[in-house]
Formats: sequence, structure tokens, C-alpha cells
Amino acid sequence: MSNASALLTDLYELTMARAYHDLGMRDIAVFELFVRRLPPERRFLITAGLSQVLEYLESLHFTSADLQYLEGLGLFPSTFIDYLATLRFTGTVHAMSEGTPYFAQEPILRITAPILEAQLVESRIINLMHFQSMIASKAARCVSAARGTRLLDFGMRRAHGAEAAVFAARAAYLAGFDGTATVEAGRQFAIPVAGTMAHSFIQAHDSEEAALRRFVSATGQPTTVLIDTYDAERGARRVVALARELKAAGSPGQIHAVRIDSGDLVERSHRVRHILDAGDCPEIEITLSGGLDELQIAALLEAKAPVAGFGVGTRLDCSEDVPSLDMVYKLEEYAGKPRRKRSLGKETWPGAKQIFRERDAGGVDARDTIALADETAPGTPLLHEVMRDGRRVAPLPSLAESRDHCRVSVMRLPAALHELSGAYDPYPVTVSAQVHVLADRMDQAGE
Amino acid sequence: MSNASALLTDLYELTMARAYHDLGMRDIAVFELFVRRLPPERRFLITAGLSQVLEYLESLHFTSADLQYLEGLGLFPSTFIDYLATLRFTGTVHAMSEGTPYFAQEPILRITAPILEAQLVESRIINLMHFQSMIASKAARCVSAARGTRLLDFGMRRAHGAEAAVFAARAAYLAGFDGTATVEAGRQFAIPVAGTMAHSFIQAHDSEEAALRRFVSATGQPTTVLIDTYDAERGARRVVALARELKAAGSPGQIHAVRIDSGDLVERSHRVRHILDAGDCPEIEITLSGGLDELQIAALLEAKAPVAGFGVGTRLDCSEDVPSLDMVYKLEEYAGKPRRKRSLGKETWPGAKQIFRERDAGGVDARDTIALADETAPGTPLLHEVMRDGRRVAPLPSLAESRDHCRVSVMRLPAALHELSGAYDPYPVTVSAQVHVLADRMDQAGE
Repeated sequence: MSNASALLTDLYELTMARAYHDLGMRDIAVFELFVRRLPPERRFLITAGLSQVLEYLESLHFTSADLQYLEGLGLFPSTFIDYLATLRFTGTVHAMSEGTPYFAQEPILRITAPILEAQLVESRIINLMHFQSMIASKAARCVSAARGTRLLDFGMRRAHGAEAAVFAARAAYLAGFDGTATVEAGRQFAIPVAGTMAHSFIQAHDSEEAALRRFVSATGQPTTVLIDTYDAERGARRVVALARELKAAGSPGQIHAVRIDSGDLVERSHRVRHILDAGDCPEIEITLSGGLDELQIAALLEAKAPVAGFGVGTRLDCSEDVPSLDMVYKLEEYAGKPRRKRSLGKETWPGAKQIFRERDAGGVDARDTIALADETAPGTPLLHEVMRDGRRVAPLPSLAESRDHCRVSVMRLPAALHELSGAYDPYPVTVSAQVHVLADRMDQAGE
Repeated sequence: MSNASALLTDLYELTMARAYHDLGMRDIAVFELFVRRLPPERRFLITAGLSQVLEYLESLHFTSADLQYLEGLGLFPSTFIDYLATLRFTGTVHAMSEGTPYFAQEPILRITAPILEAQLVESRIINLMHFQSMIASKAARCVSAARGTRLLDFGMRRAHGAEAAVFAARAAYLAGFDGTATVEAGRQFAIPVAGTMAHSFIQAHDSEEAALRRFVSATGQPTTVLIDTYDAERGARRVVALARELKAAGSPGQIHAVRIDSGDLVERSHRVRHILDAGDCPEIEITLSGGLDELQIAALLEAKAPVAGFGVGTRLDCSEDVPSLDMVYKLEEYAGKPRRKRSLGKETWPGAKQIFRERDAGGVDARDTIALADETAPGTPLLHEVMRDGRRVAPLPSLAESRDHCRVSVMRLPAALHELSGAYDPYPVTVSAQVHVLADRMDQAGE
């Protein structure tokens, strides 16, 4: 399967495209991507995935195999199939920079294109942005919790498929993680990769002692060893003995760290630290893993667990507490006229919009305004043109640059937004008077 | 990105592979894939993803680009890189047939191969089987709840990436869904595809009435129209008027169904049904969507909502209530000796194993036994050899055949397992005396 397949879409996008085509509806539509409601477990969200969206839009086309499949469905006339053969995305894209914090109802991406094109790309655009944004938002909480302690993504195995694994690593790195265990993500995005051994390596030996010794000798460079296959404290004592032996043989520093992956990590890390220190190995660090999330990271640090790094897996890559966001892509304007959906509980603000973010005198973000795109409001506009007529207007920032942008932007948020739980004042987001006026006018006009 | 990349693995698999290679550890290992604990929200799980695992194992190889990246990491000696260039999977695979119900601690897949190969494939095997099994298990609950009402997968947009969307559609279909909106899944797996229109089509017109009329005319075949963009009951009255007009013009049957996607679906569906019937359109069906899951489906049917089909999206494709399973891949035997992990709370049963399922006189599944692979226990063995020396022993069943197998197998489970909630007796799974004896013997032997 190609991840750029034009068939990565819901069938109704094609059914509608066919109707737009046959009805001659070629006017320009404006769609906006936003999250309707912030999950209670999140105080802010982080934009991510724009780079993949632009790649998708630039390369969008139907192959002859795609067209053959669609023709075989018997749903579409050949005139439409012929049209699809020539289709390319020719629209304009405005977006928040990757790594920017955002809130409910704020568009993070705006597509302006002939309605058929703008409609067709809905499913994959949501699919790409929803996932990475969800993971970056979860990762940002881990980063807040870790207060500078090293964080690695260990989540590939339970990520929802290959693309999820690779994009989770990217989104976590964007939000401040230090690296990933997922090799393919390392290759694709030049993310630092890490990882040394699993319990199976120990178990494949008749004794843990032999396994540790052989692993260190085979690795030939400073490494992390896993010590809890049978009993973490006994494992730590074996590491001390081995480290002493290596020092005596003139090969110090071969054991960089020990990893503990089970049990009560506070108690175990303290006891293991004690064993390492008493054994004259203060340089050997402790890393922790095993079902961790931001709340456990915070609790471990609160309990002063002597830890140099965390591996965060399933709960990050599956965004376990918030496995989906209420992210939608809605028509806001067609043929120059604003549009509004009024389905119960799913109402939208009409018109093409812009977000302005105001900072207070101390440099802290103070308020956002959701305004019309042609309005001016106080603060800095967050949506920028990134693609025009189907081509990028400039190269996007590198992942490292976006990571810096994310770090700085998150730091500017009010302090309460960095807390993981407890009561707090939500970040103020105001809808401009002009947007209200437009919505009221449309409601009065009927439909 | 290729979904078959050999770099879809955790770095530690490669670090261990290098150690196995350099240490000359070439003996046969047995790894088993199983779920440690059943989530409280699931009474059984469904195996899925075997077909993708076998494709992965058959095609596993490192490309020169893969090797170049690995070499550039500076972690691996060139002798190991050269070895990887020649690596193929040469092992044996035993597995439960796709669509088989299973329970905690029961191996659903067993890999027997030189330890380096068996280890290297861990991350991707879990990644493939975990996701599809999780989705098939969620889908099976929806199928139980729907009691024969048509079910469609609408979840692509919030699935975790492209592969998740396509495999979710496959897993849901395997578990009894009737189709999917995800076109790429339809193509890859010959799953029926469905989908007609979104709110944006209605909004792109100045009136809902014009939008409905034009959509039906452009579609040219029986279709489903969405009626809740502004007001579902008004939408239903417009559908009645349009259907009458079409009948009068000699084109009956163009409107097959109406879809409601918001609000109180019980109340709305009853009111809309009343409007359709009163308007002499009893043949127009009602389909429902919008944040549905198995509990809401059950509640809607309990309330006698007049519904012919459900669209299930986010909560299916993200397995919202259970976004991960505690699925692991553990070493059970190496060089002919059983192996056991004893990390606190993560203990494993040693040795290569088989699952036997016994049925009672009434044809209902009564009990499973987790036995050693060379034991005989009452009932039918569930793990079959599907690959030998890296090649399939026979073609797997088709997806349609696996779907039948799933339907029949789920029907054989005790009735209480089909209930969605409430107290129940968990399905009895026994560990054979021989497995117990082996575990005790290993515990006494130390490590």
C-alpha cells in the first residue's frame, strides 16, 4: 500500500466529487480544520502533521490502477473517471506552524480551492493532522512532567500500525522528546534512535550474569542493560560486579545505564541506586520504562526517583487517555458566500478565519481571538500561507526548527496550562464581533 | 515509506541481533504472542492480522538504503551489516486462524526460528497483530449489539494513520461488519464500500432543497441523503416532497435512505420515520451515525429506533474504550530449553504451547486448556502450522472465509460472552498440569 494513494479517502468524498463535477460546481470553497472541543484531559493542543499534508497535496493524483478500481465499482460514469485522471490539487493552504499550541474552535489549517479538490482531500488531511496533533499534545504533557529528564518513545509495537509508529515518533520528537526506538522514524526524520536489550536476551542465556557480560562485550560501546528479568536488585549487584571487573581490566564506562521495566519503580530505583552507589558505580544511570505516562513520570520525579531517562511507549503512541480528538474539516465559504452548519451540537462559525494571539507585558500568552481572515485584531496572526496554486510558497521549517518553535511557544503559555491536573482557568479564546455578526445574519437569513 | 521496511522495528531488536550474531548464538528460539490480561471492557478477543504477518515474514529483507542508514548510525560493525544484507526469515509459524476468539495468556502465534530472526521480527509482528486484533474485538461487540442491522466502518479520518484506517476496515469486516467507507481498504481487500454525502455538499448550495434535488439527479442511482445539516425533520419533509416528485416523474427509488448524524438519535429517528411514513415513503430507510459505539447501538435498538444501518467511526477505528491491548511476544524456549520471565507482575508460562478448546454437548465452547505443544489435552487444538522454513504451508483462507469462521466461532461462545456489560462468569481457561510442573521446576532451579 502506498501512503500517498488517492484512494485513502472516504467513498463519499468521491460521490460528492462526482456530483460537483456533473453539476458544474467549480467555484472556490474554503474549508477549515479545527477541534470542536478540548478533551478535559488536555489544556492545550499542539499542531503537527503539516509537512505530511503538503506532501500529500503536492503528490495527489489517481493512478491507472486507482481509476480501474473505481470504474469497476460501477458507481461512476467514465466522464468522471477521465476527469479524475487529470486531477491535481491546485489550491491554497494557510496553516499554523507545526509545534504551535492551539485551542478549541481555532482553525489550524485552511484550504481554499475549487470545491471538488477541497472536498476530496478531507479524509486524508484529517487522518494526517489528527493523529500527529494528538500525539504531540500528549508528548507535550510528558515533556512538562519530565522537567528536563530524557524522554524516549518506545511505542512502536502497540502504535496503531506502521504509519502511526513512525508519525508518533515524529510528533513526540517535535514536542520535545529526545529520541525514539523506532528505526524507520529515525531514518525518515533524522530523529536520534536509542535502544539496547529486551528480557529475551537475558532469558536466552542460562544465567543472567553470563547474559550481561556477553551483551556488554558484544556491544563494544557504552550501553544500557536491563536488570529486572528475574530480580532487579540481584541484577543491579551483578552489574556492579561486572562494572568493577571491566574497570579492573581497563575498560571502564561500558555500562552506561541500567533499565528497570517492572514493579514499583520508585522503590526499585531507590534500591538500585543505593546498590550502584555502594558498589562504587555512581556513574551508572537508571532509566525507567513500563506502562509510563505523564502522570507517572510526574509522580516518580515527585518521589525523587533517581532517574536519568524515561521510556514512554503504549500510552504515548496510542494517546491512551485521549485516543481521538474531535477534529473536523468544515466548509466555511463557497462561491464567495459564507456557509454555516447548524446540526444540533455541531454548529460552526462561518467564513474564512484567522487566529490572533496576544501576549501580556511579561511575554506570556494572554488571549486568542478567532476573527475573520480579512479582519485585523490585536496580537499576532497564527495562520500563514504555506501553499499557493498547489505549490509550497517556501520550504517548511525543518523538524528541528519546528521542535524549537514548539518549545518556545509552549513556554509562553500561562503556567497553569503546564500543570497536568487540578482546577485551572482555561486559556481565553474570544470570537470576534464580526464573526458573531456574520453568524447571526446567516441564522436570520434561514437555512 | 514502505510498510514492509525492515526498519519497522525497535532499535533494540537490531542491537540484540548484533549481539546474537557476534556471539554465535544461532540456536532455535520459540517466541509466543499473547495478551497478558483481558481488558475489563472485553469478554473475549478475536485474532486478526495473520495474513499481514506472513506477508511481512516472507518479504523481510534489508535494502541497500536500509543498510546504509544503519551503517551511518555508527553502532554496528560492517560484518553485521553484511550479514543483514543476506538475512531472510527461515522459521516456522504456528497460529490460530484469523477470526478465532481467544483469551488472556493464550498464544495466538508461535514463531520457531534462529533466535536472531525470531527476535528481529518482534516489533512489527506485535504492531500488526495487536492493532487488527484490537479492532476485530471491538467490532465483534458492535456486531453482537447490532443483531443483524447493517454496520459500516466510517472511521478513516480519525484512525491513527493510513495503515490503521485500512487495517481497521479489514478487521471490522472480518468480525462481521458489512462494509467500509475507506476506498483503499475496499480495493486492497475487496471489502464492499459505501458512502454518499457529507454536510458540506448541502452547505455548498443556497438551499437544502436544491442540494438534495441536485445530488439525487447527479448520482443517478439509489442513494442515501443526509438530512440534518440544518433541521432533521425539515430535511425529512423535503425528502418526502422530492421522492413524490421523482415518483410522479417516473423515477421512483432514487432515494434509498436518509442519514441522521447528530442530536438525540432515538427521538429524531422516530420523528423522521413518522414523517417518511406519513408522506407515503415507507421504503426509505433510516441510517444513523455520529459518535456511535456498541453501547449506543444496543441502546438505540433497545429503544426501537427505526434504523436500517449504522455508521461506526472514531470509536471503532481508535478502539476508543480500549486503545491498546497488553499484547506481548515472549521467549518460551531457546536451544531446546524452556525459558521463563519472572519480572514482577509480568511472569510468563514457559515452553512452546498449544491451546485446546472443548465444546459441551450442546455445541457451546466450554473450556480452554493451555498445554505444552507436545501434550494432548481434551478438545480441538487451535494453533496450526501456517509457515515452514519461511514459506507458507498452504494459502490462508480468504478474508470472506475468515469472516465466516469468525461468525461461526463467536456464535459458539457461551451466551454471557455476547452480553456487552454486567456481571458474568469469565470463560474458563486452565493451564495444564504439565505447564505448571515445568514452571515450578524452573523456579526451583533458580534464575
